[in-house]
Amino acid sequence: MIKDDEPLEKTPFVKEIPRKADDLSEWYQAVCYKAELVSLAPVRGCIVLRPYGYGMWERLQSALDVRFKATGHDNAYFPLLIPESLLMREAEHVEGFAPEVAWVTEGGTEKLTERLAIRPTSEVIIGTMYAEWVQSYRDLPILINQWVNVLRWEKRTRPFLRTLEFLWQEGHTAHETQVEAAAEAARMLDVYAEVAEDVAGVPVYKGEKSKSERFAGADHTFSIEALMPDGKALQAGTTHELGQNFARAYDITFAARDQTQQHAWTTSFGMSWRMLGALIMVHGDDQGLRIPPKMAPIEVVIVPIARGDSTMASDFAKELLAQLKGEFRVKLDDRDLRPGNKFADWDLRGVPLRVVVGERDLAEGKVTLVRRDFAPKTAGRETPVAVADVAATIRELLVAIQDNLYAQALTFLREHTFVPATHDEFIAKAKSRAGMLDIPWCDRPECEAAIKEQTSATTRNLRTPALGPTCLACGEPARVQAYVAQSY
Amino acid sequence: MIKDDEPLEKTPFVKEIPRKADDLSEWYQAVCYKAELVSLAPVRGCIVLRPYGYGMWERLQSALDVRFKATGHDNAYFPLLIPESLLMREAEHVEGFAPEVAWVTEGGTEKLTERLAIRPTSEVIIGTMYAEWVQSYRDLPILINQWVNVLRWEKRTRPFLRTLEFLWQEGHTAHETQVEAAAEAARMLDVYAEVAEDVAGVPVYKGEKSKSERFAGADHTFSIEALMPDGKALQAGTTHELGQNFARAYDITFAARDQTQQHAWTTSFGMSWRMLGALIMVHGDDQGLRIPPKMAPIEVVIVPIARGDSTMASDFAKELLAQLKGEFRVKLDDRDLRPGNKFADWDLRGVPLRVVVGERDLAEGKVTLVRRDFAPKTAGRETPVAVADVAATIRELLVAIQDNLYAQALTFLREHTFVPATHDEFIAKAKSRAGMLDIPWCDRPECEAAIKEQTSATTRNLRTPALGPTCLACGEPARVQAYVAQSY
Repeated sequence: MIKDDEPLEKTPFVKEIPRKADDLSEWYQAVCYKAELVSLAPVRGCIVLRPYGYGMWERLQSALDVRFKATGHDNAYFPLLIPESLLMREAEHVEGFAPEVAWVTEGGTEKLTERLAIRPTSEVIIGTMYAEWVQSYRDLPILINQWVNVLRWEKRTRPFLRTLEFLWQEGHTAHETQVEAAAEAARMLDVYAEVAEDVAGVPVYKGEKSKSERFAGADHTFSIEALMPDGKALQAGTTHELGQNFARAYDITFAARDQTQQHAWTTSFGMSWRMLGALIMVHGDDQGLRIPPKMAPIEVVIVPIARGDSTMASDFAKELLAQLKGEFRVKLDDRDLRPGNKFADWDLRGVPLRVVVGERDLAEGKVTLVRRDFAPKTAGRETPVAVADVAATIRELLVAIQDNLYAQALTFLREHTFVPATHDEFIAKAKSRAGMLDIPWCDRPECEAAIKEQTSATTRNLRTPALGPTCLACGEPARVQAYVAQSY
Repeated sequence: MIKDDEPLEKTPFVKEIPRKADDLSEWYQAVCYKAELVSLAPVRGCIVLRPYGYGMWERLQSALDVRFKATGHDNAYFPLLIPESLLMREAEHVEGFAPEVAWVTEGGTEKLTERLAIRPTSEVIIGTMYAEWVQSYRDLPILINQWVNVLRWEKRTRPFLRTLEFLWQEGHTAHETQVEAAAEAARMLDVYAEVAEDVAGVPVYKGEKSKSERFAGADHTFSIEALMPDGKALQAGTTHELGQNFARAYDITFAARDQTQQHAWTTSFGMSWRMLGALIMVHGDDQGLRIPPKMAPIEVVIVPIARGDSTMASDFAKELLAQLKGEFRVKLDDRDLRPGNKFADWDLRGVPLRVVVGERDLAEGKVTLVRRDFAPKTAGRETPVAVADVAATIRELLVAIQDNLYAQALTFLREHTFVPATHDEFIAKAKSRAGMLDIPWCDRPECEAAIKEQTSATTRNLRTPALGPTCLACGEPARVQAYVAQSY
């Protein structure tokens, strides 16, 4: 465990990336640093998102943002600091978040009379504003999202997966009725699943969280859960039906159609840069990252192979760059390095497609496209393409690579989702991190606590109906079907 | 002055907007609240940027971001919190910013052993990382920008112009040579001037800041300065040549081409949501906002005028919306309100162009376009347009409105830029906030202090050569030409 009084942290120097199968955690951190996605910051538990990592974040942002806007949401910005007295109004919420809050107690030269929390999430400050903005049912729904940094005082941290400060989006909506709020939470869960699967290429299970795993202050929490290569699940996005809990605590009331005063029904939902951690772990291999084209800051890299003093390859590479850059995110690697070093570097960075421009190929009117999703020396990795067909082939291959990475991840998820036949099999598989265990479950916190105690696993999310009569964990009547796994 | 122990702030309810000429400050705040750009937050000195205000911010962001990327900059993200010991390393920087810093002293349940500053700006944390990333001249230049919130513990605050927390971008670059760093600072100043003038329609004067007005820790600071209707200048963007000051304090060294170890030359530059404040004050009128089309969240609003139960106008309005929305940011106002109320509402919000769809016009195959940049009842404000020509006419008029708003502002700036002939005229005009006073100046801090003492004005920025032999303020030899004004 890292203490806040340790000396400034330095990003470890990574000489070689270990094999992914040998130690996922070591591999993961090595890739994050060596591919220049992140550096450790001189504040414990915080990372710097470097340009290449931020490029992925921008792709994720834009995929989500366009979907939020298409479903009627606007962006806004609410303050970073929350007065302690405001934070205290929703009892469950405080209980959940207070232990993780960083407090501002001095401003300039003055000691503050009230502590100010750095937002761990913004239900409180946004609820307070909605109370000011909403008078009548005509003011509803309010559908707002914000892209912000938040801070939670965590003990153990790891790039993207858990950091003191992180970037995310948080949506906050207020509705006339419970039905509308529930529909909103479900719609946003669908958006998250679509972005995870269709953009990041990470297949997920959707469902409701158990009572013990619910967001502090919510009536219902829903999640998307991905499966990592070590058999641990990763929660990659959550949506919450907050009922009227926050509306009561923060006074969001409105004159209803029937002239009565009502409390609004609110929701919230969030996805963070954690999704990038899932993408890295799910798709990466021993050479480094494999980034799905839709998430890639660079989709195509052009590498000319010079022969002696001839500029034929590099001249053609420049022309090709000019031709492609209107349509693709493309980069020309004209560094003074050996080709093998360049190839290794772009493999490490997971660029989906490489165009190798060699003089011998050029003489035959061809270049060679190399797919990052295929392992070295496998058939189909390299495709010679006539110069005239390069753009069209790139277009096709990027789609194929996106699809293939998703298909590989889906196969892994399916092969590591188990329906245990017996209690003992369930316990053994949960302990050994076999993957997602799909069991009929009683939906009782005591049972969940017992599973966790015995196996370190928890329910990831739930759906109905139960597919068997009794809970595979405790033998009580089953009420839901649950995915169970150890988790990040 | 507002104290931090005052009760929670509420956004004042604005019944009517005062006349702009009567009280610019009252007018400004009334427009900000009534047009739903901002609300006051329940943390003193902080605002909420509401969706309509955020829509303008998104336009500004995108105008800047595309120019940063076109000039080789990448986005990244650096942590919010800076350990006190790090902040203390650059002496001038600390002296400038320490009085404005908010301090985190508690995290979760623990008291921290070292205070953490919430970034007032990020030279310190970014310099620390550059020291880690840069080894050789091959690693230079580094051209990075980040879009973030920063916090400065200000006493007096006003929406957009000065708030405790604000949104901005900060660029930070590191270079091999002083010449390259100077070129970068100049290039980014040009970007700021271009965005201010061509996008926000706000004409500015570019130049270097005087020693007294320089950024804490910089060798040279440059600014763009706009003129507000009350004759006060507003600094809307700054770029800084930091010399090797931060490189020395944070150890950014590199192996140079001649094998020696050198300190890098760094720059930084920032533009904030303050630019929105300038735009509001410069263009607004007694009806409310007038937003230049390139900055408008909504460029065109369609208002159907129903006659009795006929749906002819609203049906056509829907068709028109479908036709226009691929090309323009367009909204259909189908609210159940009187047309006059709708018109007033869109005038308040400053939407550049209104399409009024009336049945009588429609019967003649026409609609009426109404320009927001023309005052009510002036010739040219309303243009009847044949239905077939609507899109083409909108396209032309949006360009014309953008140009006209800029031209009006430029006329104002020119008419309020004075070249005083005598010392007494200079002093009188400076005291009375006549506008930008363009004088030969000695470039001495003592003289600047005396001007400020006598008139409340300061130099806004400087250029060379001086256009007269002696300083108009003190009579010493003139070294530069200065714009002098009172300022926000």
